[in-house]
Amino acid sequence: MIVVTLESMKTGTLAIFGTGLIGGSVGLAARQRGLAGTVLGVGRNLDRLSRAKQQGVLDEVSVDLEQAAARADFMVFCTPVEIIVDQIRSIAPFCRPGCLITDAGSTKAAIVGALEPDWQGEGTFVGSHPLAGSEKQGADFADARLFQGRLTVITPTARTPAAAVEKVRSFWQSLGATVVTMTPEEHDQALAHTSHLPHLLASALAAGLPSDLARLAASGFRDTTRIAAGDPSVWTGIFLQNRHRVLESLREFSAGMQEWQAALEKGDRDAITRLLQRGKQARDALGN
Amino acid sequence: MIVVTLESMKTGTLAIFGTGLIGGSVGLAARQRGLAGTVLGVGRNLDRLSRAKQQGVLDEVSVDLEQAAARADFMVFCTPVEIIVDQIRSIAPFCRPGCLITDAGSTKAAIVGALEPDWQGEGTFVGSHPLAGSEKQGADFADARLFQGRLTVITPTARTPAAAVEKVRSFWQSLGATVVTMTPEEHDQALAHTSHLPHLLASALAAGLPSDLARLAASGFRDTTRIAAGDPSVWTGIFLQNRHRVLESLREFSAGMQEWQAALEKGDRDAITRLLQRGKQARDALGN
Repeated sequence: MIVVTLESMKTGTLAIFGTGLIGGSVGLAARQRGLAGTVLGVGRNLDRLSRAKQQGVLDEVSVDLEQAAARADFMVFCTPVEIIVDQIRSIAPFCRPGCLITDAGSTKAAIVGALEPDWQGEGTFVGSHPLAGSEKQGADFADARLFQGRLTVITPTARTPAAAVEKVRSFWQSLGATVVTMTPEEHDQALAHTSHLPHLLASALAAGLPSDLARLAASGFRDTTRIAAGDPSVWTGIFLQNRHRVLESLREFSAGMQEWQAALEKGDRDAITRLLQRGKQARDALGN
Repeated sequence: MIVVTLESMKTGTLAIFGTGLIGGSVGLAARQRGLAGTVLGVGRNLDRLSRAKQQGVLDEVSVDLEQAAARADFMVFCTPVEIIVDQIRSIAPFCRPGCLITDAGSTKAAIVGALEPDWQGEGTFVGSHPLAGSEKQGADFADARLFQGRLTVITPTARTPAAAVEKVRSFWQSLGATVVTMTPEEHDQALAHTSHLPHLLASALAAGLPSDLARLAASGFRDTTRIAAGDPSVWTGIFLQNRHRVLESLREFSAGMQEWQAALEKGDRDAITRLLQRGKQARDALGN
C-alpha cells in the first residue's frame, strides 16, 4: 500500500520555489525518498541556491522562475506568504498542462482566495500548509525528517478538481506527513489560535523583558519565547493576511487574562488553582 | 581552586526536605560530587523516599523532620513555597549550633520576610532560588546536572552573617551553579517578569485552545505552553506570594498587547514589523 502511494507520487521535475528551511527540507526529503526525477531549486540568490545544491538539498538550481515553471511537473512555493500569489500568477502562463502547484504558506484564505477565481493558464493550484518549521532560517537547517509524523493541512475548495487534491495529498504523505483537509477559512481561524496568537504573545513577552533581567531568563522563559526569533519580515505578512482572525483570538485570550487579573487582585486561591488546572489539563492533553 | 571550593563545602549531614525534582537533583548531585558525609532525604511519604534512595538519589531517609534537623549540618528545603516557612519554624528549635538552612523556593520576599526577623534557635537561614527545573515532577526525573551552568539567586539581607552567605554560595557552586546575590524584593520582581508572568501566559494560552484544534498545535504552540504543565498546587502558592509583582508585570505586558492590537486593527505594516523585530532582538539576545 505504501509502495503504491510512493509510486503514484513519483514525478518528473519537482520545482521548489524558495529554498529556506521549509523548501530545503522538501528538497532533501524528496531526494532521499526518490520522489522526483529532478529536484529543481528556484530562487533569486544563485550563491544560496548553489550552496543548497552542494549540501545535497537540490539536484539543479535556477534563478529563472518562468523557465523553471515551464519544466516542472509539480511545484511547491515555499516563499513568504506575501509574495506567493504574485509569483504564482507570474508563472501561471508558462505552466505545462497537467502540472500541479501548491504552496507551504502559513495563511490560506488570502492566497487561495486570490488565486482560485481567476486562474489563467494550465495546471491546478491547491493550497497547503505543512505544520512544521522552526525559528531557524535557511537551507542550512534543512531536515529530511521535518514533515515526518507532522500534520499538513491542504485547503481545496469546491472548485478544486478531486484528482489534483489527491496528488497534493499524496505528495505530502510521501514526505512523511499526515494530511488533513480544511477550508482556507477554517485553516486560518485554527492557525490564529495555534500559531499566530502564540507568536504574538511570545514576541511581546520577549520584547517586554527588561534587558538587565536577561540573565535570569531560565529554560521556562526560553521555551515560552522561542518562536519570537522567527523572521519578522515573514511574520509581518502572516499577521497582515490573517489579522482579523488573530484579533479575534487575541480578544478571547484577553478575556482569559481578565479572569487571571481578577483572581490575582483578590488573592483568590481557588480561582488561581482552577485557572492553573485548566491550563495544565489542556497542555497535558497535547503530550510533549 | 575548584578542589578548594569543593573541600570547603564538604559537609557532614546534608538534609534535603522535599525530594521531588529539585530536591532529588540536589541529592543526586551532592552524592556524585561527594559533598556530604550523608545525604539525608526528608519527607512525609516513606514509599517515595525509599524509591528515591533505591535510585541512588539519597543515602538515608527520614519522615521525622525534627530528628532530621537535629542531625543536619546543612539543610535545603525543596518543598512548595507555601509550606517552607512553617516547616523551617517547626524545626528551628532542634537545629544544631552552626548549621545552615536554605531553600529552593521560587519566591523569596514572603519566605525571607517571615523567617528572618524572629529567628528562634540555632543556625542561620539564607534564602536561595536555583533557576532550574522542569514541568516534570518527582525524583524519578532527578538530574545530577540540573544546576550545572544555571544561575542560583541567593537573597541575604542586612541581618545575614557574611560567613553564612559564603557557605550557601559555596553549596550551590559546588552543585555547578553560578550564584548571584539579590535582595528578596529584587528577586521577586525579576522572577515575576522572567518566570511567573510567562507561566500565567502559557497557562492561559493552553487553556484557551479549543479542544478540537489540539491536533493542529505544532512545535511552536508546544514550546510556548510547555511550562503550563507544572503542578497547579505548587504554582498557586507562587502566584499568591508574588501576586502584586505579577500583577504589575501583567499590566506592563497588557500595555504591549495594546500596541499589538492597534497595529493589527490598522493593518499597520511598519508597526507590526517593529513589534516583531523588538521581540526577535530580545529573544536572539538570550541564545538557545
